[in-house]
Amino acid sequence: MTETRALFFDVFGTLVDWRGSIAREAARLRLPVDGAAFADAWRGEYQPAMARIREGGRGYVKLDTLHRENLDRILPRFGLETMSEKDRAALNLIWHRLDAWPDVVRGLRLLRVKFLLSPMSNGNISLMADMARHNGFHWDAILGSEIARDYKPKPGVYLAGCAAFDLEPAQCMMVAAHSDDLAAATALGLRTAHIARPDEHGPGKGEAAPNVPVDLAARDLVHLAEMLVG
Amino acid sequence: MTETRALFFDVFGTLVDWRGSIAREAARLRLPVDGAAFADAWRGEYQPAMARIREGGRGYVKLDTLHRENLDRILPRFGLETMSEKDRAALNLIWHRLDAWPDVVRGLRLLRVKFLLSPMSNGNISLMADMARHNGFHWDAILGSEIARDYKPKPGVYLAGCAAFDLEPAQCMMVAAHSDDLAAATALGLRTAHIARPDEHGPGKGEAAPNVPVDLAARDLVHLAEMLVG
Repeated sequence: MTETRALFFDVFGTLVDWRGSIAREAARLRLPVDGAAFADAWRGEYQPAMARIREGGRGYVKLDTLHRENLDRILPRFGLETMSEKDRAALNLIWHRLDAWPDVVRGLRLLRVKFLLSPMSNGNISLMADMARHNGFHWDAILGSEIARDYKPKPGVYLAGCAAFDLEPAQCMMVAAHSDDLAAATALGLRTAHIARPDEHGPGKGEAAPNVPVDLAARDLVHLAEMLVG
Repeated sequence: MTETRALFFDVFGTLVDWRGSIAREAARLRLPVDGAAFADAWRGEYQPAMARIREGGRGYVKLDTLHRENLDRILPRFGLETMSEKDRAALNLIWHRLDAWPDVVRGLRLLRVKFLLSPMSNGNISLMADMARHNGFHWDAILGSEIARDYKPKPGVYLAGCAAFDLEPAQCMMVAAHSDDLAAATALGLRTAHIARPDEHGPGKGEAAPNVPVDLAARDLVHLAEMLVG
């Protein structure tokens, strides 16, 4: 079996709790909304916004730009259409400061002893760099959508990451809490590890287990490190 | 004055001692050559190799590819034309393991408290990631030639770095031991800091001071941190 040299991580949902973080920010800002519903609505616009770019109907723009357009789209639904430009710009940056799930910092530190580590996210470079600062992640590089100028699960995004590290897909493992992300990686020859995030979309609303074949299925990142580093 | 948010670092010569590191590798491998002369010859092919790409006569290829072509070019001059393919490939990776000047790890650690840090090098991402591991650098991202798919001092390389961090050029400072690199950055509106590396090309053969106007001139990275972080 080919030795695994690098681990690529999905970020939103796999490493960080976007839903809880956005709900907490809404509360901190005293927005008159149900924070979890607001987070769900904002995240709900995520896939449709990327679809046009994946399909070639629009050139690449950073996820920050899509997040901001999506925010403008949902604010009227929550009666917040009068929010100022300045406040919208500030709120949009909450995606740069999402909080990690409790196992992540320790898990990444253990995994870094043996593997090159990079996000393989649809988040842009500045978003990933700020989030790493916020949580104390130490990436070897920030690969993913911005260097490929496209969005997962398009093959070029994963393959650009392998190429940047001078590795074959079989030397790279995609780590994610989402079976569709892992299926796309498997199709390209990457190895895969599923991380259970059963509460990503609210209590009991997340993938507790993969629904596609994977190489490894872990309870969390520390469990993955126990399997891969020992 | 606009606040500086990110520091971009030239790497070869500014952060790492390419000449001494390559000479030491030649000695370790018992190559029958003058190690410093071998390093100088190899590095001497660097600018001509990049020139064709900068001028559009050749598409972007990683610096690893250019280093390997340059190695093949100089081996006959040192009577080493019989070196095997495997040994050439292994020797070429010495550029991934160059040793930092003694002030660099401490200087970067001090500077990281206040600024986003990235290499702004012609080295490719895997080279920069391996070198960071070898020396213990902690980058926020690896920007530079590979994300721009061109080579410094082409403006697009510096500007792609600013854009990746969502910063204006005036919010970024280029740090280098080479006046031409700093002049190119100044022309684009970046701030500049010169680092003295008087022995880069051998004793007394390096820039002890800038020969162009710069914002700051420092003895080394710790001195720069004293000026910028206090």
